[in-house]
Amino acid sequence: MSDAKTIAFVGLGSMGLPMATNLVKAGHRVRGFDMREAAMDALAAEGGERPASLAAACEGAGVLVLMVVNAAQARGVLIGAGALAALPEGAHVCLMATCPPDEVATLAAEVAAAGRVFVDCPVSGGVVGAKAGTLTIMAGAATPAFEAVAPVLRVMGDKLYHCGTEPGQGAAVKAINQLLCGVHLAAAGEAMALGQKAGVDTATLLEIVSGSAASSWMLKDRGPRMLMDEPPVTSAVDIFVKDLGIALAAGRAAGMGLPLAAAAHQMFLAESGAGNGALDDSKVVAAYRRLNGIG
Amino acid sequence: MSDAKTIAFVGLGSMGLPMATNLVKAGHRVRGFDMREAAMDALAAEGGERPASLAAACEGAGVLVLMVVNAAQARGVLIGAGALAALPEGAHVCLMATCPPDEVATLAAEVAAAGRVFVDCPVSGGVVGAKAGTLTIMAGAATPAFEAVAPVLRVMGDKLYHCGTEPGQGAAVKAINQLLCGVHLAAAGEAMALGQKAGVDTATLLEIVSGSAASSWMLKDRGPRMLMDEPPVTSAVDIFVKDLGIALAAGRAAGMGLPLAAAAHQMFLAESGAGNGALDDSKVVAAYRRLNGIG
Repeated sequence: MSDAKTIAFVGLGSMGLPMATNLVKAGHRVRGFDMREAAMDALAAEGGERPASLAAACEGAGVLVLMVVNAAQARGVLIGAGALAALPEGAHVCLMATCPPDEVATLAAEVAAAGRVFVDCPVSGGVVGAKAGTLTIMAGAATPAFEAVAPVLRVMGDKLYHCGTEPGQGAAVKAINQLLCGVHLAAAGEAMALGQKAGVDTATLLEIVSGSAASSWMLKDRGPRMLMDEPPVTSAVDIFVKDLGIALAAGRAAGMGLPLAAAAHQMFLAESGAGNGALDDSKVVAAYRRLNGIG
Repeated sequence: MSDAKTIAFVGLGSMGLPMATNLVKAGHRVRGFDMREAAMDALAAEGGERPASLAAACEGAGVLVLMVVNAAQARGVLIGAGALAALPEGAHVCLMATCPPDEVATLAAEVAAAGRVFVDCPVSGGVVGAKAGTLTIMAGAATPAFEAVAPVLRVMGDKLYHCGTEPGQGAAVKAINQLLCGVHLAAAGEAMALGQKAGVDTATLLEIVSGSAASSWMLKDRGPRMLMDEPPVTSAVDIFVKDLGIALAAGRAAGMGLPLAAAAHQMFLAESGAGNGALDDSKVVAAYRRLNGIG
């Protein structure tokens, strides 16, 4: 491809690996780096390069993609492990992990001060979207930076939005997205637990509210799992402990009180504190049951 | 029609009038009663009967439908104004207004003690559903009572659910439906206000969250009106002051703490308290703006 770039891709997890693989398939030269050797082998098997070190991955690369767990890891890779210094001047750093907006803005300033170009571009859509190349990508970056990396981002996601010209604004939109997901999920738990306590048939209740103005994506997806004793884990309670925490951090940074997000966060924290952080996030309903003495 | 019944219908408001009209069109003998003469004239023009008094409407009727504003009005009609005594023994009383479950249960006991049969059957679907006969009807009643009135209810709604065998359980499901609607609407306001405070483009934000797992029926319906300075009034702030109040009353009666519903209720109360109770309920976003000093 004429716009093929050399891309250093750090973080080959359940989402990062398929995202990097899609870049390989689109004709880019992709150097995948991860702490786990097996993940690097997996990308190499798809046609990616297997760099000898993080610095080797970054040398000469036009784009560094960070699909790590959180802001601390992003900082560790860029500053602590030297990725930023190893990149060519003018290279683009695409931070695609979910991070608090103020920490993204701070990192962006450090990257700019080092003469590289920062693009804040977190994603939503999960593993399914990562594999299919149908992620939603929410970018906060100056327009020239956004336009420079857009062809690379469009390989990974088919819904690319330029949310604002400041780094941190993509992160803010992602945080707001998670705020809504988390509040809707906790609300579904509050509703289902109330139905149980009021003695109504909860399957009928779920059918009714799923088909009315009371419906949400989360209610329809997680509600049926709230009726199960041991739901399969598709996303863990602790993910919303983290993501609603980021939403509240986004509010704090913007100077904004968020009463619903704060209340919902407490229910996920309580469920995690009860020892169920690794269980399916639909288990937030169990926090409501314990709280109200529902057997 | 072979199952045509004589029906006394009290409360010919924006929903009651089209509901009663649908009963007339289905071949029932409908005696419409309302405090407003014009409403009674309107039903008579559709082929309904125009009783001389509430008592005259009830004499010999097999079913009394109550589509009044709240539980206090239902009690006033049944007990205060003598409708219960005027009904034949064994007649069915269908309470279709949105009321607190415990007050419904109390009324039901009084109706049963008087030798009439109570059916708790509130609706959702609004004026549009009332006109089209496509309401959702949530019934709490003993099975024989439910089955006796089901043919009449199916004229008004095409989604009829038997939520439980106790009066009050239909009201509980309706309360839970409104809990979800109210929390989702307040959450949309919280999200949009945070977006504004964080400086992101709110139209882009709304497009993103409306198309992701963050979506809800309320977000998609009310979100666009949150972007308007003066949204048209489709449902007022004070309706959610009332309905989330009923959800909290349902929780209190069941012995259930509802942190999200309580937090959402406060935002609607605040917006009403700021003098905007009659404005469109999407104005709950303005309470978040005032709270956080967003100009």
